[in-house]
Amino acid sequence: MTDPAAKTRRAPKGEKRREELLDAALQVFSREGYSGASVARVAAVAGLSVAGLLHHYPSKISLLMGVLQRRDEINQRIADQVRAEKTLCGLLGSLRAINAANANAPGVVRAFTILNAESLLDAQPAWAWFQQRYEGIQRRLQGQFADLVAAGEVRSDVDIPGLVEEILAMMDGLQIQWLRFPERVDLVARFDTYLARVEAAIRT
Amino acid sequence: MTDPAAKTRRAPKGEKRREELLDAALQVFSREGYSGASVARVAAVAGLSVAGLLHHYPSKISLLMGVLQRRDEINQRIADQVRAEKTLCGLLGSLRAINAANANAPGVVRAFTILNAESLLDAQPAWAWFQQRYEGIQRRLQGQFADLVAAGEVRSDVDIPGLVEEILAMMDGLQIQWLRFPERVDLVARFDTYLARVEAAIRT
Repeated sequence: MTDPAAKTRRAPKGEKRREELLDAALQVFSREGYSGASVARVAAVAGLSVAGLLHHYPSKISLLMGVLQRRDEINQRIADQVRAEKTLCGLLGSLRAINAANANAPGVVRAFTILNAESLLDAQPAWAWFQQRYEGIQRRLQGQFADLVAAGEVRSDVDIPGLVEEILAMMDGLQIQWLRFPERVDLVARFDTYLARVEAAIRT
Repeated sequence: MTDPAAKTRRAPKGEKRREELLDAALQVFSREGYSGASVARVAAVAGLSVAGLLHHYPSKISLLMGVLQRRDEINQRIADQVRAEKTLCGLLGSLRAINAANANAPGVVRAFTILNAESLLDAQPAWAWFQQRYEGIQRRLQGQFADLVAAGEVRSDVDIPGLVEEILAMMDGLQIQWLRFPERVDLVARFDTYLARVEAAIRT
């Protein structure tokens, strides 16, 4: 009854199974959106019965929340690694790093872009999650830019909340065109050009 | 059998009815997206039977196409009015005018944003429409910026296709945050700040 592969596993069996289910859910959301997706399809992609899926995630909403949460944790880790350097270069570098990671994950970005727009309807289950997500990111970035104003590296006449809204808008908007024309739109180059212009305008 | 109001009508009865149906469809798409919307709901909002609706628009897809087409014709008229002036100010002014018109039409923008993201799935009926729409707008704006390079008003080292992608991305991205936080996000001010920075960077 012992599993010969058990020793090489990093995560307990249940956790591994949940990761596989989130991978499958992401794949299905990326292809069918949230409202179009079915739990049965996610179970089939993961090679599990629907009952087996529901044991780990009791509803489609809980799968959605699992997918969203995991994605943000990954982005947060990427940002934290670069943010170690508390300069304008460090802050813009962390934004570039997240954008570059996105450029390698079109399926994730597609799922996120569709879920984001679907949840503009306040009856949608992810509405509150996305509201809090934007507020959290806005607050964190505002604090980081404000620190750079205090440190004398960013001009004190810059509208920080407006700048943060603008930067997030550019990331979101570029993703839409990149998903439509992946051969032509260079997600990394476009965001770099934009951020370089921002840097020149806000640096003291 | 004569209708006393007939003389004051600008459009024939069928056209007026189609306009009312497109208004209703836009309202329903704005609240429920495309995949979530039903023809029966659109008919109810327009005060028509489903059969009556299907007489004018034989399918949900034809309603969708009607809504998208009408929106773009309106935007094109707004752009043409301002574009009369063939200068950088004129071109940026036409972009500001479209953005300002959007700021007065949150329902339209919400419907468009959701339909745009829903149609990132290439099985979605509006996929090809949105692809062609982006290509058409990109081509038109690229031509206008190229003319300004030729006229010596825009620097010749500007990556014009990249700049156009970037400007469209900013419009799309700001709309998402504005729809989420209409009380806080100033769509007009944010786009103006962005465009002023672009203008300073590209003007000769």
